[in-house]
Amino acid sequence: MADRVKHIAPFHVMALLARARAMEADGRDIVHMEIGEPDFPTPEPIVRAGQQALAGGATHYTPALGLPELRRAISGHYRDCYGLKVPWQRIVVTPGGSGALLLATAVLVQSGDEVILPDPGYPCNRHFVRLFDGVPVNVALTAQTGFQFDLPALQRSWRDSAVALMLASPSNPTGTLIAPDVLGQLIEFVEARGARAIVDEIYHGLVYGADAVSALSFSDNTFVLNSFSKYFGMTGWRLGWMVVPEPYLDAVERVAQNIFLAPSTPAQYAALAAFSAQTREILEERRRIFAERRDFLVPALRDLGFDIPVTPSGAFYIYADCSKFTRDSFQFCEDILEKTGVVITPGADFSVADPKRYVRFAYTTDKQRLEEAVARLRAYGLS
Amino acid sequence: MADRVKHIAPFHVMALLARARAMEADGRDIVHMEIGEPDFPTPEPIVRAGQQALAGGATHYTPALGLPELRRAISGHYRDCYGLKVPWQRIVVTPGGSGALLLATAVLVQSGDEVILPDPGYPCNRHFVRLFDGVPVNVALTAQTGFQFDLPALQRSWRDSAVALMLASPSNPTGTLIAPDVLGQLIEFVEARGARAIVDEIYHGLVYGADAVSALSFSDNTFVLNSFSKYFGMTGWRLGWMVVPEPYLDAVERVAQNIFLAPSTPAQYAALAAFSAQTREILEERRRIFAERRDFLVPALRDLGFDIPVTPSGAFYIYADCSKFTRDSFQFCEDILEKTGVVITPGADFSVADPKRYVRFAYTTDKQRLEEAVARLRAYGLS
Repeated sequence: MADRVKHIAPFHVMALLARARAMEADGRDIVHMEIGEPDFPTPEPIVRAGQQALAGGATHYTPALGLPELRRAISGHYRDCYGLKVPWQRIVVTPGGSGALLLATAVLVQSGDEVILPDPGYPCNRHFVRLFDGVPVNVALTAQTGFQFDLPALQRSWRDSAVALMLASPSNPTGTLIAPDVLGQLIEFVEARGARAIVDEIYHGLVYGADAVSALSFSDNTFVLNSFSKYFGMTGWRLGWMVVPEPYLDAVERVAQNIFLAPSTPAQYAALAAFSAQTREILEERRRIFAERRDFLVPALRDLGFDIPVTPSGAFYIYADCSKFTRDSFQFCEDILEKTGVVITPGADFSVADPKRYVRFAYTTDKQRLEEAVARLRAYGLS
Repeated sequence: MADRVKHIAPFHVMALLARARAMEADGRDIVHMEIGEPDFPTPEPIVRAGQQALAGGATHYTPALGLPELRRAISGHYRDCYGLKVPWQRIVVTPGGSGALLLATAVLVQSGDEVILPDPGYPCNRHFVRLFDGVPVNVALTAQTGFQFDLPALQRSWRDSAVALMLASPSNPTGTLIAPDVLGQLIEFVEARGARAIVDEIYHGLVYGADAVSALSFSDNTFVLNSFSKYFGMTGWRLGWMVVPEPYLDAVERVAQNIFLAPSTPAQYAALAAFSAQTREILEERRRIFAERRDFLVPALRDLGFDIPVTPSGAFYIYADCSKFTRDSFQFCEDILEKTGVVITPGADFSVADPKRYVRFAYTTDKQRLEEAVARLRAYGLS
């Protein structure tokens, strides 16, 4: 067995989920607030495009980097939504945002290389680094900077042996964004040291208030990844993309050819409908609903006694300090599952530095169920 | 840039394909015999199942190892087609056979580990080894053993530093099988040395004459990978599976959770229809057609002067020695593309030891087009 496997942890929430399913099988009503995907189905125009592609026999391989027409459509998305000119040749369609992370780490990280990561952060990121025998340097960040890097935090934690910095804005689990000027400073700092920034923008679109700014506004030398999963509601289709700095394109293509052959063909044809006006209308309505849920849940959780030091501006997560109730957030999650039937994700899935202080609530269920969850937590005696 | 990238070569055929597409754009009629996928569309019952799943909203994530009902259906396939009892819990659904290779190499291969590979063989295999900084040991095999390992060849080439042996039966590019008793001997030899065999069975089903025997007949400690791509005609859907030795299951699940999240949901629901009697009937008819094409093409190519030392028994490939015509098979491929409009794959994509002596013909186009290709090659003066 390869040594790296020791460093790749399972998701802690899986144990809770298994217990929740057993409880459901016993007839208990469970409110799922652990789920990192929209509860909405894929928008109908996208589904229809997928079905039509299947009817038309679009079941063969596409080029390794994806259908040129989809790459062009994504380039159009940057033009229309960000006012950015991104050559379609730099856009690589991948099997999910996960495929993009795999390609970026495969071409950047080798044995012993350090990669700087925000803590709390998306757990798979440090495991991608481990997959290529790199060393994740998890930097504990605080509520003062919205759990995101700012320039002083990056300067303090930087090491000359680091080859990359991974960022996510909005972040999973915190839902916080990096301010545009700060994002520009971070990228400039990293690139001035000959390292690369890998910026996860998969929750773009799910931002409440001002629109998010892309890292592509600041540099052509950043790896920017995105996905059809979250905003576009295509989780199960497994389709994402990455904008690749030109000098790495050839390497990314060779790796993609060999390890993926190609992304899913039906998913790619379906995704061609993701940028239509009709789809946009559905997605914007969903964004409004997510914002409403957030606006209900953040004050309701605060009222219960959770400390939410930064109001999240994006994604569909709330990272809540539960130290008023417990010294061990995993055990807390187990307790409230058992007593109330509400499933949430323990902070241990997102933080190495402070794994027991926080929990993550996902508002990926409808408002009525969120109200039910809050009522149960209150009845359990949380406030 | 990570050093490994230097060792990951592009497919040589891509350059020919780009030229062929340019010629097509200029109005030339091109016969495609380079393509490693069936020309048939996905069987209608599978497509219909996929469309129905989409209509029913099956667009969310599944568990990381796949839908339990699909894993059970695959277990049923081993029971029905091989008479083997394979617990469904050992069956891991993956994003293509490629996903299975990625998981197997991720848990087995670390920096400096040697992996023994047949040469000629599927080019991605050595690149998966490189992806994890392992060292592929390409062992030149000859027509005497059907370009496959036998026990003496493995004994001669074995190194104690090797952690794995990768096999494929039927093989790409040769279409040859490993005889069942030899397969058993190879696996026993490898496992007695504490190493693992990774056996690629993705061309099972596409065997003409006797059915192939699975490596699972010989050992529960072998990684056996398969795919819905080739026999089942689902290339573009990107769905495969792997039967994992029990001691590695937990590691494989952790890696799969982190690097894939899950395989494609629509593809998995579609694949549930892959084992029905109706689908089987369509697939067996296609198998008959592939056999007919082989039976036409092998003697026709021999008649042109190609040396085909072993008549292939499976897959849809013919590995032909073109040394009667050229000392450089890549240049030969370029020449015949330019002069005849027939695209074939140069041996350099499959062999490190002898890259210039062979070419691969794929009979993934209908018999009329194969006849056209043979006529053009003859007119060009090959015989």
